[in-house]
Amino acid sequence: MSDTNGMMQAAVLHGIRDLRVEGMPAPGGPAPSQVRVQINKVGICGSDVHYWEYGRIGQFIVESPMVLGHECSGTVVEVGSAVKSLKRGDRVALEPGVPRLSSAMSHYYMKKGEYNLCPDIFFFATPPDHGAFCDYVNHPADFCFKLPDNVSLEEGAMIEPLSTGIYASRVAPVVMGDTVAITGAGPIGLMNCLAAQAAGAAHIIISDVVPERLDVAREIGATHVVRGEAGEMKEAARSVTEGRGADVCIECAGHPSALNACIAAARPGATVVVIGMPASDTAAVNINDMIVREIKLRPIFRYNNTFPTGVNLIASGKVNLQPLISKRFTLRETPEAFEYVLANRATCVKAIVEVS
Amino acid sequence: MSDTNGMMQAAVLHGIRDLRVEGMPAPGGPAPSQVRVQINKVGICGSDVHYWEYGRIGQFIVESPMVLGHECSGTVVEVGSAVKSLKRGDRVALEPGVPRLSSAMSHYYMKKGEYNLCPDIFFFATPPDHGAFCDYVNHPADFCFKLPDNVSLEEGAMIEPLSTGIYASRVAPVVMGDTVAITGAGPIGLMNCLAAQAAGAAHIIISDVVPERLDVAREIGATHVVRGEAGEMKEAARSVTEGRGADVCIECAGHPSALNACIAAARPGATVVVIGMPASDTAAVNINDMIVREIKLRPIFRYNNTFPTGVNLIASGKVNLQPLISKRFTLRETPEAFEYVLANRATCVKAIVEVS
Amino acid sequence: MSDTNGMMQAAVLHGIRDLRVEGMPAPGGPAPSQVRVQINKVGICGSDVHYWEYGRIGQFIVESPMVLGHECSGTVVEVGSAVKSLKRGDRVALEPGVPRLSSAMSHYYMKKGEYNLCPDIFFFATPPDHGAFCDYVNHPADFCFKLPDNVSLEEGAMIEPLSTGIYASRVAPVVMGDTVAITGAGPIGLMNCLAAQAAGAAHIIISDVVPERLDVAREIGATHVVRGEAGEMKEAARSVTEGRGADVCIECAGHPSALNACIAAARPGATVVVIGMPASDTAAVNINDMIVREIKLRPIFRYNNTFPTGVNLIASGKVNLQPLISKRFTLRETPEAFEYVLANRATCVKAIVEVS
Amino acid sequence: MSDTNGMMQAAVLHGIRDLRVEGMPAPGGPAPSQVRVQINKVGICGSDVHYWEYGRIGQFIVESPMVLGHECSGTVVEVGSAVKSLKRGDRVALEPGVPRLSSAMSHYYMKKGEYNLCPDIFFFATPPDHGAFCDYVNHPADFCFKLPDNVSLEEGAMIEPLSTGIYASRVAPVVMGDTVAITGAGPIGLMNCLAAQAAGAAHIIISDVVPERLDVAREIGATHVVRGEAGEMKEAARSVTEGRGADVCIECAGHPSALNACIAAARPGATVVVIGMPASDTAAVNINDMIVREIKLRPIFRYNNTFPTGVNLIASGKVNLQPLISKRFTLRETPEAFEYVLANRATCVKAIVEVS
Repeated sequence: MSDTNGMMQAAVLHGIRDLRVEGMPAPGGPAPSQVRVQINKVGICGSDVHYWEYGRIGQFIVESPMVLGHECSGTVVEVGSAVKSLKRGDRVALEPGVPRLSSAMSHYYMKKGEYNLCPDIFFFATPPDHGAFCDYVNHPADFCFKLPDNVSLEEGAMIEPLSTGIYASRVAPVVMGDTVAITGAGPIGLMNCLAAQAAGAAHIIISDVVPERLDVAREIGATHVVRGEAGEMKEAARSVTEGRGADVCIECAGHPSALNACIAAARPGATVVVIGMPASDTAAVNINDMIVREIKLRPIFRYNNTFPTGVNLIASGKVNLQPLISKRFTLRETPEAFEYVLANRATCVKAIVEVS
Repeated sequence: MSDTNGMMQAAVLHGIRDLRVEGMPAPGGPAPSQVRVQINKVGICGSDVHYWEYGRIGQFIVESPMVLGHECSGTVVEVGSAVKSLKRGDRVALEPGVPRLSSAMSHYYMKKGEYNLCPDIFFFATPPDHGAFCDYVNHPADFCFKLPDNVSLEEGAMIEPLSTGIYASRVAPVVMGDTVAITGAGPIGLMNCLAAQAAGAAHIIISDVVPERLDVAREIGATHVVRGEAGEMKEAARSVTEGRGADVCIECAGHPSALNACIAAARPGATVVVIGMPASDTAAVNINDMIVREIKLRPIFRYNNTFPTGVNLIASGKVNLQPLISKRFTLRETPEAFEYVLANRATCVKAIVEVS
Repeated sequence: MSDTNGMMQAAVLHGIRDLRVEGMPAPGGPAPSQVRVQINKVGICGSDVHYWEYGRIGQFIVESPMVLGHECSGTVVEVGSAVKSLKRGDRVALEPGVPRLSSAMSHYYMKKGEYNLCPDIFFFATPPDHGAFCDYVNHPADFCFKLPDNVSLEEGAMIEPLSTGIYASRVAPVVMGDTVAITGAGPIGLMNCLAAQAAGAAHIIISDVVPERLDVAREIGATHVVRGEAGEMKEAARSVTEGRGADVCIECAGHPSALNACIAAARPGATVVVIGMPASDTAAVNINDMIVREIKLRPIFRYNNTFPTGVNLIASGKVNLQPLISKRFTLRETPEAFEYVLANRATCVKAIVEVS
Repeated sequence: MSDTNGMMQAAVLHGIRDLRVEGMPAPGGPAPSQVRVQINKVGICGSDVHYWEYGRIGQFIVESPMVLGHECSGTVVEVGSAVKSLKRGDRVALEPGVPRLSSAMSHYYMKKGEYNLCPDIFFFATPPDHGAFCDYVNHPADFCFKLPDNVSLEEGAMIEPLSTGIYASRVAPVVMGDTVAITGAGPIGLMNCLAAQAAGAAHIIISDVVPERLDVAREIGATHVVRGEAGEMKEAARSVTEGRGADVCIECAGHPSALNACIAAARPGATVVVIGMPASDTAAVNINDMIVREIKLRPIFRYNNTFPTGVNLIASGKVNLQPLISKRFTLRETPEAFEYVLANRATCVKAIVEVS
């Protein structure tokens, strides 16, 4: 942290594999509905690494230096004039996506509570919006969630990736006693595993090609692990459901073959939640099997209204994030952290940067 | 009708394009939970014509002579010993699909009310089950629905195809004020148009390549018709929704391109109901567009619990089926009726066979 | 209208039965997210009359002079600096309730889209907030809805009371083919009748003690009218549902006896939407009948996300509000209008004040 | 067990406090869709004790000798000719309520999957239907659920009371992270506590006047216990929800005051599930508070489709029923068992009779 003269330290992406920790102007005072947050912990997400490695994700291109990081927590140091829900000293998790209310269509989705569908959203570390690997940010108070005493700032920073799992299990929905099949045991697959067990799933089947990831999955609640074979996933799902198949499948691998493995493993009437984005814009899906067995596809994009749930799940012990933390770094070590994550993709679940 | 000596007349498919109206044994008395129904009206469905033209639909192959027809109504002439819900003389619509409770999985879906998902279902005119182009059938009382006085037997026979529309609008769901886009204005697309307007859709956009079908669509409630161009459908949907897109899309054409046209026309968060089965088992769908805008696919297979709704919609005048009836035939003329339907595919919506 | 010197005309309630049309300062320029609207039409609501007659509604007490009126439409005359969804000259309906985001609890409900549940809401003509019987108001752009060319400003002003019906039918939900029973055929009951028929209700049974109201109900879609007798409502509901009862009941009378009539008329598993507030804080409900037949109570308070639906229903002709307009007045005649409404309660459905 | 000469032993209620273990004719062979089950374990329910103590429950009056007991499990000893889902030797839990399909209304609810709402239901030990404190019963195969190896027959017998909790949490619904408030910590309240924690509730507040029951509640997952004070329950709910209140309340005490305590403890928009039947047919509820905060009442009557969930929850360890078993008896000791349960109402949660 360095706040003298209005400057702060930040991890800024200047180009492909060019991440620099350097000084930049700290933001001024918060707007009336904002709070100023001193960032404390920030997790490294696969998307951060992807921007660093390739300079872009799909149509989102880093065209000028951009602070990375969007899984973050911190401490409120100043509150805007209209803010009554938070006070100085509150420890908060920050929800990184804030709709810009720039059209009737944005108003429409914001008012319905489906604000992740607004056509124009500020999102930490999505070009051109700066992220949170830095000392200070101003953020709307309604996108900051106070952490109770028994939730650490490190856990607070992980509510963001957990949110994908919470949202998937909520919209599927995963109901107590369900059998859930998950393809892909990377960070997103594991967060979905945690959320599904919290929602009462009786059986959780998870597949991956990396055995170390499956070990973590077992540790956090998966009841069956499948090393890569889609056919095996279908068999596993049927074996615990009197032949029906999984009640909910969650595709986190981003491969069309995994998507069809989910469709095959699903019971008639089940929902396949689609999270992983394939490299290609189209995917050949087994449409006729989907029709005769009424297998639904439920794609999700980010999440909405998940942070209060995340706080409650962690505070109550329903979700334990500790097994997912692989390594910790300081803000200054951020470039090394990215190198580490890239080099240890198979085994590193979540690396955390301690900003302050 | 001819019941002497226990024989009856039926339209029996003996092979490709070999449909014969001939005598066959009438069924015996009804089982305790069944009623014996004298069939009155039977509609000709595209699937009937397909069996007649090709001898099969996908994995369903006509291997021995089979009575065709599943869109039917009739009069109760005898009730089984345990039946209390119907009496002799009642005019009824027959729901053609009856689950065989042959496994724990069948019990599971039957008890949940999702009986169309049971793995083993008797269905009129799906091989090897005989259909209803005949004088008499025995049918479970709980799959026969009494028609009020102001619903004709002809309308009663059309509750079956209307059911697809009712089910689609129910599960989507279509909510009053919605904008609905439908691809394909054949009989199924038109039934969906009728159901969507009954459910309160404010705008119904329908596409087809056949102008005569679009004329019928306009007559029964479509507010915008699109002659074939998918891009035009998207534009039409956006033009009436402040740029958002359709709240519900219903794919009735059975082409992957129509499916992607639905995805493109859908607003963020919308549902695309998939009814039309493509010729190929797989379809290349625009998965990444589906993810970033959360477009859901909701395939449906037949329907459940739609007949009481169908009866109510017709009796109350919320749905008017008359514009869909193209031509009437007697049972003896059934082969000519099939020739007619095939030859007039573009303009014949629904042909009705008057059995008795 | 009179805008010289920053003054405008308004109908201000000074005390019980003391409503004065007088000059008051017009609001200044709109805040960045607001638009300035020149009010055009304002409906008189029962609550306006109640404040005028009694000076209070429950815990809401008029303690200082207050402009009445909350069913309103107008023309945008100025847009705030951040507004991109509207422009000068747009004709709009105004949603009168705007949450004040003054607590974490307000944020919680606003972000979920259930903003009517926020604990602190600005609402036109709910003390101490001024209403819309005046020339100008500033209002948030996201609570103003552009009217298409074929929707009049008079219809636009009636979207507010229609909203209660839209919301009731949406949350119940009323599904096409349903039988709906409504107690009370005052303005709210009639708006619910309109919404239920738009949602596809096959049978609408409505009860009241005033025969003139039942005549209007018939005109706008009620299929059965019941003059006051609760037992008769139950019989009517059963007679059209093979003995089951109504799929949805909507209580708009504000009497515990009407509430129990709804419970009795409901089929097993049905929902009773509760809108009418009884004079007493408690009501003796037939709880054991509710339990053995699983009759749900679904109270509603105002509405959320109904205005886009209202616009669509009117524009498409699914709802015709004309039969509900009883009489029109100018702003100067507002006091006489209130006298008229009070004197003609049995027959006056909706009186409209033409402000400009 | 004693099957010689077609006789068996049964615990038969002959009159008030007159329960006799005596010989009676065993049922004959199963009907085609039934299985013959040798009963193994039967739990004693409060309703069994009530019939024994008073000879009636509400309108259900024991008019001739009746076998008691409906929480049961056993072993299949013979299968009907049409049964394919079970085989001799299968260990099963028996769902006690089987609709009699005696009317169109019964068909309607059965086909929708809401079979607990059928107007005419066979139910073990509800007059005049015999119960399961006996050696053998014939029961429909689709109401018998095979137990996996790791679920004991004793646990199998407890799926019935657990079902009330599963159903309550499913329909409310209880969603992961929720705060749930339960009034009454008797067997039903405790089963609801177990189900709510399985569904992911973060906070479970439970109230009772008996401290021993609250001790059990704590042991099985309650996070806050309240000794009788309704006001305290509201405070407890608000203290863990930033002032909002409980997301779901479940009334298991059968007192109007408990119902109003639930309403007060509920957050705006919450659902109060009503299970407990008050002694009086009506209850004075705080209707205006329900309206302004949109508190829904969701009464439940028995349950549907809960047994597969119950099997999964027990087999997976998500629910542990052991802490609820207070004492075991033999069939011969059934009268003493009833005396014991009555005398130890405050502390006896579940007594189990081991029939064979």
